[in-house]
Amino acid sequence: MINVSQAREIILKHIPPVKETQFLELNLCLGRVSAVDIKSRENIPPFDNSAMDGFAIKAFNSTGASGGNPKVFAVIADLAAGYTIAKTLKDNQAVRIMTGAPIPKGVDSVVMVEDTASNEGRNEFVRIFREVNKGENVRYAGEDVKKGEIVIKKGDILKSGYIGMLASLGISKVKVFRQPKVAILATGDELVEIKEKLTPGKIHNSNTYSLGAQVQSAGALAVVLGIARDKKEELRRKIRKGLSFDMLLVSGGISVGDYDFVKDVLKELGTTIKFWRVAMKPGKPLAFGMMERVPVFGLPGNPVSSMITFEQFVRPAILKMAGRREIFRFHLPAIAKDDFKKKKKLRYFLRVVLENQNGALYASLTGPQGSGILKSMVLANGIMELAEGLENLRAGDKVQVTYLD
Amino acid sequence: MINVSQAREIILKHIPPVKETQFLELNLCLGRVSAVDIKSRENIPPFDNSAMDGFAIKAFNSTGASGGNPKVFAVIADLAAGYTIAKTLKDNQAVRIMTGAPIPKGVDSVVMVEDTASNEGRNEFVRIFREVNKGENVRYAGEDVKKGEIVIKKGDILKSGYIGMLASLGISKVKVFRQPKVAILATGDELVEIKEKLTPGKIHNSNTYSLGAQVQSAGALAVVLGIARDKKEELRRKIRKGLSFDMLLVSGGISVGDYDFVKDVLKELGTTIKFWRVAMKPGKPLAFGMMERVPVFGLPGNPVSSMITFEQFVRPAILKMAGRREIFRFHLPAIAKDDFKKKKKLRYFLRVVLENQNGALYASLTGPQGSGILKSMVLANGIMELAEGLENLRAGDKVQVTYLD
Repeated sequence: MINVSQAREIILKHIPPVKETQFLELNLCLGRVSAVDIKSRENIPPFDNSAMDGFAIKAFNSTGASGGNPKVFAVIADLAAGYTIAKTLKDNQAVRIMTGAPIPKGVDSVVMVEDTASNEGRNEFVRIFREVNKGENVRYAGEDVKKGEIVIKKGDILKSGYIGMLASLGISKVKVFRQPKVAILATGDELVEIKEKLTPGKIHNSNTYSLGAQVQSAGALAVVLGIARDKKEELRRKIRKGLSFDMLLVSGGISVGDYDFVKDVLKELGTTIKFWRVAMKPGKPLAFGMMERVPVFGLPGNPVSSMITFEQFVRPAILKMAGRREIFRFHLPAIAKDDFKKKKKLRYFLRVVLENQNGALYASLTGPQGSGILKSMVLANGIMELAEGLENLRAGDKVQVTYLD
Repeated sequence: MINVSQAREIILKHIPPVKETQFLELNLCLGRVSAVDIKSRENIPPFDNSAMDGFAIKAFNSTGASGGNPKVFAVIADLAAGYTIAKTLKDNQAVRIMTGAPIPKGVDSVVMVEDTASNEGRNEFVRIFREVNKGENVRYAGEDVKKGEIVIKKGDILKSGYIGMLASLGISKVKVFRQPKVAILATGDELVEIKEKLTPGKIHNSNTYSLGAQVQSAGALAVVLGIARDKKEELRRKIRKGLSFDMLLVSGGISVGDYDFVKDVLKELGTTIKFWRVAMKPGKPLAFGMMERVPVFGLPGNPVSSMITFEQFVRPAILKMAGRREIFRFHLPAIAKDDFKKKKKLRYFLRVVLENQNGALYASLTGPQGSGILKSMVLANGIMELAEGLENLRAGDKVQVTYLD
């Protein structure tokens, strides 16, 4: 039986990134993955401009200014953002300038309106009550981004800040990778659809719903194929359909039991199984294979095992397929609130509630950690990872937790 | 000038939560907000069932079993998940049972197939190599959720785990709050649309794009009204249109400058301005008012100030309006990597990169922190909050950071 790291390595080695791209309008790009490095074609800001409402002056003309000894400047123009003036200012001349307006020629600084008094009218003068430093309240051209600079890398996910940056650069369409399509199939004669009434021995199919939501959260498109009964013919037909998408998730049916046809059917259809058990809890019966270029995951049927193995293996696989540069969640250091006894050979993924108390981050178990306890996934805002080798976790131990957004 | 906490309090006090609800199919509910407490109408699991593939027996019949001294049981039936058997088992009888199948009457435990050997055929017997504890590998009815228990509260956001839980309960449609519609209007004669070429003194309109993305990320619907020129008539017309939505964000035009008509126009249209400056950096010129039941934010035009004030004020307002119970981001304790000098009177929001190094979480500044440096929002995965009263941050100080997903 391989461990979690080995399993992840095998999976990621086989995942083919999508090649197809789309040109999308910028307002549709949130959460999509850039298919190219994006270079700035201009400076941001494009010109030196005022960071404040105030008066643009030559700084050295303010030398010695104070509340008791203001320096007086002639205001020769008003300059709003969006406009320019052609004149070059002379000594002791000022321009009343608005935030964002370009710094006129001949001046080098802006004094805030709060540090001035003016008469507002014809032959306007402004008194300046303090010394101004050269460059004060000036935002220089290219201060944010220089022309030619790479602002977004191929594989970056386009978050709000990136969208704003692209707009600043006047980029109205972006080449993004298409989203992978992930087919989801549940197996098991015990499953009934959620609209149907339960009869003895039956449970509702929940995994295609939670997996569908996880696929969407990972930025891919979920194609739910429903439930396949534990009959070879039906499995074969639905799995064949699933293999026509970019990735196939089969929920349930991968175990040592006699009724677990899934592996057989996958093999029959030409899938090479790379592994089918991983030393972890929850989630041991996890299979992974490749049907030509289509990755196939056999996920455990237990609801929590299903969600946890998705998090650990399928999510990074989807992100790699989607072209993302960063495919793993952020790990946070935290302090365990509970004792916990585990099997030394397995890596554990416990569902926890993270709390920030007195400047430290604590992780408390959500309650019972059985692989059937879906409530643990509802309550959790983090997954605590306990490494192989560890046997007893003690309250107060330092742990690593991934934060679930 | 009021402080950040006061501003947030005033805003939240005025935000009206949406009342209208929608009944949505479960697969459309990811990220939506439940409009009701949801009670379980059944136990999960609905019946005692096997957690393993193995043999269901009476535990006490295995007393004394070991590798050298197996106990032998007659296998009277095979039981797959989804099926039941009517028979009540007698002493030393076993049922070959699959994961998820209901525990038959008369037995109380399941021994894993790995701890057994059987002949597989007619008159099947199974040898059991170890003592089994009563209840071993049995998942009891209601172990996850008890009938009548509230599993989801009004105001919960429906994440993957919740979707799985609802499916388990056979709930195929959920009553959720409708999403608030947030209108976004940019003002400023310096702005040109992103498809247009820049002329001297002009910059591209980026704030409606970044704000649109932030509104979407907060789970609301963005309605972008474009750019209004700094002319009263045009502002009046577009602001009036904006006031027909649930919330209006006006970007730019709220400052001390003469060209800032926005406040005047808002007042003219009947908006009560509650405040228009907040002691923070970036973001000081922030206005908030109410036009009857419609909250109106006047956000600063600087791209970073715009995004930060959105994060601090508009996002919680949208989440409150959307009916969410939890409206603030998670704060993480971290250690500052940089020295930083600030003004004592203002609360600062610095853009940082969080890194987990040797079991501790560090926050490094993204670089220059000017309110025009949009790159800081591209690079950041966290916002470090420095309280009023603090003057000098030192590398090594403990700080609070919100993690941006």
